[in-house]
Amino acid sequence: MCELLAMSANTPTDLCFSFTGLTRRGGETGPHKDGWGVAFYEGKGVRCFHDPDPSASSRIAEVVQTHPIKSEVAICHIRQANVGGVCLANTHPFTRELWGRYWVCAHNGQLSNFSPVPGFYEPVGTTDSEALFCAILNHLRQQCDKTTPTKDLVDHLVDLATGYAREGVFNLLLSNGDWLFTYCSTKMASITRRAPFGPARLKDADVMVDFESETTPNDIVSVIVTEPLTSDETWDIYRPGEWRLWQRGEVVMAGCS
Amino acid sequence: MCELLAMSANTPTDLCFSFTGLTRRGGETGPHKDGWGVAFYEGKGVRCFHDPDPSASSRIAEVVQTHPIKSEVAICHIRQANVGGVCLANTHPFTRELWGRYWVCAHNGQLSNFSPVPGFYEPVGTTDSEALFCAILNHLRQQCDKTTPTKDLVDHLVDLATGYAREGVFNLLLSNGDWLFTYCSTKMASITRRAPFGPARLKDADVMVDFESETTPNDIVSVIVTEPLTSDETWDIYRPGEWRLWQRGEVVMAGCS
Repeated sequence: MCELLAMSANTPTDLCFSFTGLTRRGGETGPHKDGWGVAFYEGKGVRCFHDPDPSASSRIAEVVQTHPIKSEVAICHIRQANVGGVCLANTHPFTRELWGRYWVCAHNGQLSNFSPVPGFYEPVGTTDSEALFCAILNHLRQQCDKTTPTKDLVDHLVDLATGYAREGVFNLLLSNGDWLFTYCSTKMASITRRAPFGPARLKDADVMVDFESETTPNDIVSVIVTEPLTSDETWDIYRPGEWRLWQRGEVVMAGCS
Repeated sequence: MCELLAMSANTPTDLCFSFTGLTRRGGETGPHKDGWGVAFYEGKGVRCFHDPDPSASSRIAEVVQTHPIKSEVAICHIRQANVGGVCLANTHPFTRELWGRYWVCAHNGQLSNFSPVPGFYEPVGTTDSEALFCAILNHLRQQCDKTTPTKDLVDHLVDLATGYAREGVFNLLLSNGDWLFTYCSTKMASITRRAPFGPARLKDADVMVDFESETTPNDIVSVIVTEPLTSDETWDIYRPGEWRLWQRGEVVMAGCS
C-alpha cells in the first residue's frame, strides 16, 4: 500500500509542513520506502520531483521539505511497492497531457481483475496504477472533449472510480491543474484551514507550525491525505465511496457512490 | 536564444560537471536567465527538474550540480525567452508519452512561419518550441507505430528537421530514452570522452575535473552542447544541417541535410 497527499489552495501555498510529515512515513515512521514523488502546479505548468529512494533519507526530498515551492494544487505519493518493481518509471505521481493541460494522478490500492484495453495513452512502467490512469484518460478522450463542462467530466470520473472500487482498493487523486478530484475507496481524510489560523503539530515528526504567521486572513488551504498528518486538529474522514472535487481550497462538488 | 546540453553514455553517468558549466550561463557568464530545465532518463523512467528562475542562482540547480544523478541519456536547456513569457509551462525540456515511452525535447531557435496543425498532442505553454515538439510527435504517431525501425523514424525526423530549418533557426535535442537525436541548424558541438581519460577545465566556472578518477576504462560518455563547455579539449563542431543519432555514447547514424 501507499500513502497519498494532496493540497488545494486559493493562493500559492507551500507544502513543506505536510510533506515533512508524510515523508517520514517513507522508511522512518512508516514502511513506504519504495520511492516517492510530488507534483506542484504553477499556473498550467507542473514541477515534478520523483525518487525511487526512501523519502525519509532522500536528498531531493530534503530540498522539497526546506525550499518552499508555492502552488495551488499539489499531489504527492509515497510508495510501498506491490505490483511493479522499485524503479523511477513506477514512481507516482504520473503525468500526461490531455487537451493542452497536464493531468497528474496518484493512486493507492490494487484491483484484482483489471486488464487495460489498449488506447492512446500507454503506461511506461509496470504498475497497475499507471495503467489505470491511462485507462481513465483514454476514456475521457473518447467520451469528452476540451469543451465538456467540469460537471460532466466529474460524472465520468465518478462512474469509472465506482466501477474500479468494486474490484478492489481504489483511492485516487487526480488533477488537471484547475481542479482536484479525490475518490476514497477505503481511506482518506481532509482538513481545510482558514482564518483564524492556529498552530498544528505533526504526528510523524517533532515539528510544529503556526499557520497564522504564514498566511493572510483570506487564505483557504485544504490538505487531503490517506491518514491525518497532525495530532491536534480535527480531520474530516471520507466514507468509503465518497468523492470530493476541490477547487481553490474548497469542495465545489461532492457525493458518495 | 537558448543553450542546449545533452549527454549520451554507455553507463549511468552524472552530468554535474557539464551542468555546472552550462548553468553559469543562466544569468552569470551568459544571458540565459529565463529559466532552465533538465531531464535524466533512468531506464524507461525520466526525472525532470524545471525552474523558471535563473539557473545561476537557483537552489534546485545547485542540488542538481552537487547531487550526482546517474543517467544514460540527459537533456538540459537554459532559456533566454523570445516567444512565450517566463513561466514554468514555457520551461524546456518538454515531455510527452508516445508508444509507452517518455519522449523529451529541447529546442533552440525560432521559425518565422510556423503554424501548428491541431493534433493529438497539444502544447500546454505558449512557446513555439513546445508546439514544434507536439507537431513532431503528431507526425510520428500518424506515420509510424511502435514497431517502426529506428532508421525509418530517423528518416522522418531528418525530413521534418530539414523542413523546419528552412524556415528559421532549429537546433534540436530529442530522445525517447533509448537514443538521442540531435539536429544542428546553426550551432552545436560534441565531445566523446573515453579511455584514456584526462582532466578538463570549464570555461564558465573555475572548476576542473579529472575524468580518470570518476570513470572505468570501458566508459564512453558524449556531451552535445550549443557552445563548447571546456577550454582545454577539442570539440567536434556540427555543420549547419548536420544531424547525429547517439546511442550509448556513440554516433550510430549521422548525415547532413
